[in-house]
Amino acid sequence: MTQKNPLPTTPIDDGFRMPGEFEPHAGCWMLWPERPDVWRQNGRPAQAAFIEVAGTIAQFEPVWMGVSAASYATARAQLPASVELIELDYNDAWMRDNGPTFVVNDAGEVRGIDWDFNAWGGLYHDWKADDRLASQVLGLRGYGRYKAHLVMEGGAIDVDGQGTLIVTEQSLLDPLRNPGRRRDEVEAVLRAALNVQKVIWIAEGVHEDETNGHVDNLCCFVRPGVVALTWTDDADDPQYPISLAAFEQLSQETDARGRPLHVVKIHQPTPMTISAEEAAGIVSMPGSHPRPPAQRLAGSYINYYVANGGVIVPQFNDRFDTAALETIQTLFPDRTVIGVYAREILLGGGNIHCITQQQPMGGSKK
Amino acid sequence: MTQKNPLPTTPIDDGFRMPGEFEPHAGCWMLWPERPDVWRQNGRPAQAAFIEVAGTIAQFEPVWMGVSAASYATARAQLPASVELIELDYNDAWMRDNGPTFVVNDAGEVRGIDWDFNAWGGLYHDWKADDRLASQVLGLRGYGRYKAHLVMEGGAIDVDGQGTLIVTEQSLLDPLRNPGRRRDEVEAVLRAALNVQKVIWIAEGVHEDETNGHVDNLCCFVRPGVVALTWTDDADDPQYPISLAAFEQLSQETDARGRPLHVVKIHQPTPMTISAEEAAGIVSMPGSHPRPPAQRLAGSYINYYVANGGVIVPQFNDRFDTAALETIQTLFPDRTVIGVYAREILLGGGNIHCITQQQPMGGSKK
Repeated sequence: MTQKNPLPTTPIDDGFRMPGEFEPHAGCWMLWPERPDVWRQNGRPAQAAFIEVAGTIAQFEPVWMGVSAASYATARAQLPASVELIELDYNDAWMRDNGPTFVVNDAGEVRGIDWDFNAWGGLYHDWKADDRLASQVLGLRGYGRYKAHLVMEGGAIDVDGQGTLIVTEQSLLDPLRNPGRRRDEVEAVLRAALNVQKVIWIAEGVHEDETNGHVDNLCCFVRPGVVALTWTDDADDPQYPISLAAFEQLSQETDARGRPLHVVKIHQPTPMTISAEEAAGIVSMPGSHPRPPAQRLAGSYINYYVANGGVIVPQFNDRFDTAALETIQTLFPDRTVIGVYAREILLGGGNIHCITQQQPMGGSKK
Repeated sequence: MTQKNPLPTTPIDDGFRMPGEFEPHAGCWMLWPERPDVWRQNGRPAQAAFIEVAGTIAQFEPVWMGVSAASYATARAQLPASVELIELDYNDAWMRDNGPTFVVNDAGEVRGIDWDFNAWGGLYHDWKADDRLASQVLGLRGYGRYKAHLVMEGGAIDVDGQGTLIVTEQSLLDPLRNPGRRRDEVEAVLRAALNVQKVIWIAEGVHEDETNGHVDNLCCFVRPGVVALTWTDDADDPQYPISLAAFEQLSQETDARGRPLHVVKIHQPTPMTISAEEAAGIVSMPGSHPRPPAQRLAGSYINYYVANGGVIVPQFNDRFDTAALETIQTLFPDRTVIGVYAREILLGGGNIHCITQQQPMGGSKK
């Protein structure tokens, strides 16, 4: 029997759920960064960082990296052999946001959610290929595709895999994404797609985060019942009231199963700004998000990626780098925690979590 | 009546000839450089140089720059409005070599020659799109296309527009281009295509020129009867015997109309090599010409472009720069001579003449 494409149901109808990132993976999807209006120096320094991230994750699980036809040969020449290259058509390299969100059922069947995508509320033009990307990936692998009619990115959601979802109002209720849609409507789509019973709405994400406050830069489930949160002790930093409000709210919350949440603070890196030299390396053009010198960067250690047996954590040559690695190591005692210098990814507007997308263990139904 | 494509004849059959570069132009074709295995730092420094060249030529005549679909928007954002962008499919940005060679007849009709192309004897893989480029350009503009069955690049020929052609044996008799073809066979194709009556064969082009000694880096007609030649006074330089032999041969030659040739020496820039930092910025990959540090660069002021009313000359921040500009100004008293810093083009393996292709004044027959 041939599956309909997209499937006529929702994941919750069919008993599929989004697993926590800390559950076992089949592998990790990434994309090769190329846009000169996002990545300085025509992407070369960012490519070096992506190579480092991909090679590090590949020590723990398969990495499948999408690349444009034009860049296939040069990407292949630079990436370690452990990283598989797959030709895909996309506008920019944020697989967390433009890729599918994978769901599984108890029989180990994998399917994917294809959200609507409009480049973070129209931050870049155009986004046609990005909007088609989830469908490309799912079609390529033969996984069933659920179409979710909500403009949303994968970085805007964080689940514990046991019925609880954390989101921010800032990103999901953004009038440039889903104008006129009420919070209860948006929540209904999320509940059906991710198969969650409780949605925790935090007001705001990280200060100056160009995604409009994606939750994945602010806080995330380490495991059910435990949430890591970016933090600052500097009461004069605009991030302070944001982190404080999130801490107070989360500390008083329970999850879908009624457990209280334990919140672990991870001190943010010292506030960073884009230098004049870095800004000059980015092609400025109409329809692209401007990146003026001295703009604050939304640096956070929370934007790590959890792989099978490993955690890959952004580093910034900052005095808080080591503390972040040490805290994350205590949170994941059974995994190897590895830092990767990630300023070049941050300059593009995100970090390691934003450029990766786990595919949970499982397969397609034949 | 619809023309056959390609035309079943040769230019000489139909009364078409290749004009001298110093004859009036309709405009100039260029291509946007992108290959990370040729242009360091993913092409960004070379793009800056191409922008400077294009903008300078556009002061004198229209410039049409081909660009890949993927790079259209970012190239547009950086190029001056005077440069027209046209989407083309190509492998690398040497319009002199992979573009058509334009020919005209006395009625002012323009047609083009589509040579066979194999990336300078297989220096880079692949070259399929480059081999189709002349056909794309001619088709786009509706110009008749002559197919010449000879593996050849536009930089390997220099004509006076009055029946005389200069070539080098090193490039045209290269066994990696036209194995087994004798000199008289090659010459017959050139005579029919360019409509010339005399072909002057020089043994060798510039030392370490990766094109196998294209004539356009060694010498060129300033006007009928006058040839500019790259020169060095340093008898220990490997370029010395090459320039000396060319000088002696050309000085004793007559052109197709029986005039003796006057040869003007233009001292080459001080020998340059690629730095370790520059070499490290180029993606090294199988199938690409290696560019190791300390390799000699084939620097020459001869690789200038003659526009309507202007001459655009490579500059290297070298002590011979000014002398070259002054000499070229005396050779072209009615044109404005402008130097453009061109080391980034030279690092890619050529110079200003190699990245440009004049289209002579005229039009297509309706």
